[in-house]
Amino acid sequence: MKTSLLLVAHGSRRAASNDEVRNLTQNLAALAGERFHSVDCAFLELAEPLIPDGIEQAIQQGAEAVYILPYFLSAGRHVSQDIPAEAAPKQQQYPQVEIKILPYLGSAEGIVELLLKLSQH
Amino acid sequence: MKTSLLLVAHGSRRAASNDEVRNLTQNLAALAGERFHSVDCAFLELAEPLIPDGIEQAIQQGAEAVYILPYFLSAGRHVSQDIPAEAAPKQQQYPQVEIKILPYLGSAEGIVELLLKLSQH
Repeated sequence: MKTSLLLVAHGSRRAASNDEVRNLTQNLAALAGERFHSVDCAFLELAEPLIPDGIEQAIQQGAEAVYILPYFLSAGRHVSQDIPAEAAPKQQQYPQVEIKILPYLGSAEGIVELLLKLSQH
Repeated sequence: MKTSLLLVAHGSRRAASNDEVRNLTQNLAALAGERFHSVDCAFLELAEPLIPDGIEQAIQQGAEAVYILPYFLSAGRHVSQDIPAEAAPKQQQYPQVEIKILPYLGSAEGIVELLLKLSQH
């Protein structure tokens, strides 16, 4: 199955923050290699593409599944409500495409190891 | 040298988000073992302890150095200006203590590997 990965960040008025996410997405695509049909990013607000447009682009590029990876640190309203609400109409529009929301970054077990590594700087 | 680690998050009106940070800090302390004199968290706003109080507590517990680890994803104003501004008066008050601000989480190289791992859920 052709699965596309969509890294979803909040979006910022500060262009450099959005560019940080875009650079990270390029690195993620490079590391993922052939694992995904495509790897792109989208934003909840304040930057483009917005989530529905990101999903649409992935589907237009042939994705049969779109996995949304929330680049968020806590399970707040954005993760629990806003991102699912942005994705739902696209799921209705394309019932044959599997649109799945993955665990958010802050829930990753490995984050503790990463913080410990940073503390050695 | 007795070094204390202070994980600094933004702070949220949502108590569960602040508790997520506190739990993470406990896990970080457990993983760090004897590496630090103490491992605690503090918040930029909206939750306690605030950054100056977190630094003060570490020093009162005998820290000779306090390493501040920003739990933030992008290098925005909070990381570049607000956290240093909160720490500066404590550095003036305690010139013999080394107060250092570490790289923020979003700048960690390992974050790409962590995202790729999450994408396999």
